[in-house]
Amino acid sequence: MKDPESGGKPDLPALQRRLAEFAAARHWQPYHTPKNLVSALSVEACELVEIFQWLTPEESSLVMEDPATAARVTDEVADVLAYLLQLCEVLGIDPLSALDAKIDRNERRFPAPGPP
Amino acid sequence: MKDPESGGKPDLPALQRRLAEFAAARHWQPYHTPKNLVSALSVEACELVEIFQWLTPEESSLVMEDPATAARVTDEVADVLAYLLQLCEVLGIDPLSALDAKIDRNERRFPAPGPP
Amino acid sequence: MKDPESGGKPDLPALQRRLAEFAAARHWQPYHTPKNLVSALSVEACELVEIFQWLTPEESSLVMEDPATAARVTDEVADVLAYLLQLCEVLGIDPLSALDAKIDRNERRFPAPGPP
Amino acid sequence: MKDPESGGKPDLPALQRRLAEFAAARHWQPYHTPKNLVSALSVEACELVEIFQWLTPEESSLVMEDPATAARVTDEVADVLAYLLQLCEVLGIDPLSALDAKIDRNERRFPAPGPP
Repeated sequence: MKDPESGGKPDLPALQRRLAEFAAARHWQPYHTPKNLVSALSVEACELVEIFQWLTPEESSLVMEDPATAARVTDEVADVLAYLLQLCEVLGIDPLSALDAKIDRNERRFPAPGPP
Repeated sequence: MKDPESGGKPDLPALQRRLAEFAAARHWQPYHTPKNLVSALSVEACELVEIFQWLTPEESSLVMEDPATAARVTDEVADVLAYLLQLCEVLGIDPLSALDAKIDRNERRFPAPGPP
Repeated sequence: MKDPESGGKPDLPALQRRLAEFAAARHWQPYHTPKNLVSALSVEACELVEIFQWLTPEESSLVMEDPATAARVTDEVADVLAYLLQLCEVLGIDPLSALDAKIDRNERRFPAPGPP
Repeated sequence: MKDPESGGKPDLPALQRRLAEFAAARHWQPYHTPKNLVSALSVEACELVEIFQWLTPEESSLVMEDPATAARVTDEVADVLAYLLQLCEVLGIDPLSALDAKIDRNERRFPAPGPP
């Protein structure tokens, strides 16, 4: 499944394909309507929020120092990315192009302050 | 900013760097605590949910047929990915490795049904 | 619609009935499945989060000092409560009894520290 | 704590006071910034969404028929209401007046269809 040319490190399109094959092998596609996937995405995002909800800003910057919390945060990041890629799969959206275009727009919308 | 070797198509690490440079050029890092970024991520995920909240499952599968809705969905997908990458940046998480490891775990947790 | 005995101030059951009549008069009940209402509830909750997402804890405590922000927060609080009551309506849940029972459970789960 | 005049049934202001006393007795107020409370509110709302995320609209209408799911939904409804009331407490918002005013505005914004 992993590209030996890239040293075994998967890229985003490879992970998106792997997720699609994972769902297909388990016959989960009927559950993967766009409506359900955006709900699942928001639930996973809120599970990230839950980790941080009572922390001060300073404490929130130190979460990776505790191995158990670091593992939990990393796991939730993976869940958010998984549902986002599955949503892109069923809708035919290229997430890399979408973000590239969005940054282009934001650069025009929020010009960087220049030198004095 | 884009890698000419890859035909101009950005990959995820390149977009993550571009977002980090974008925030740094605007001096936005003080706002980008992990706690704030997960809140922003959940808000963007809910903006996706908002598009789908009154749709039937069938209608939700057709959202890309309307150009205005397709553009809105694509834009929100980009926003979710942007905040996820910025969160990974400040926490030092590799999102591709995190997801790869998560799929490995899920393959053990949910074995695919074999042939009869 | 308001109870003249209570000086015109509505109570929660009266508001729940008013919302049910409002939806019925507009033939919105087909959209008000429990699944759709919980999505709408989460979207409104995130609209509250959006107001606070870049604020420090201290700034977040002062939001009501700005009249425009105070009005926006109050409006989103109303939206969250509206969808919560509409969810209770379609599911037959009494929100006041549910919360009363929950506080009873929490008092056993988190005993208050006694005097020294 | 419960008003004997009302047959022991609490109203919303009584529950809000009970929650405030509960938090004060445990010295939890420093955690109850508006920013933290809206995060907690959104997390609880998403826990409701999680119950419904893979259900069809029809299945979602039947959740109260299963006692375990009914208890879970009721518990999450209580959690959402608890954080909403605690937010109102720290911000000085009257949730009943806020909702009453919102319905007034919505009646003007979405006029009910009249007789033919």
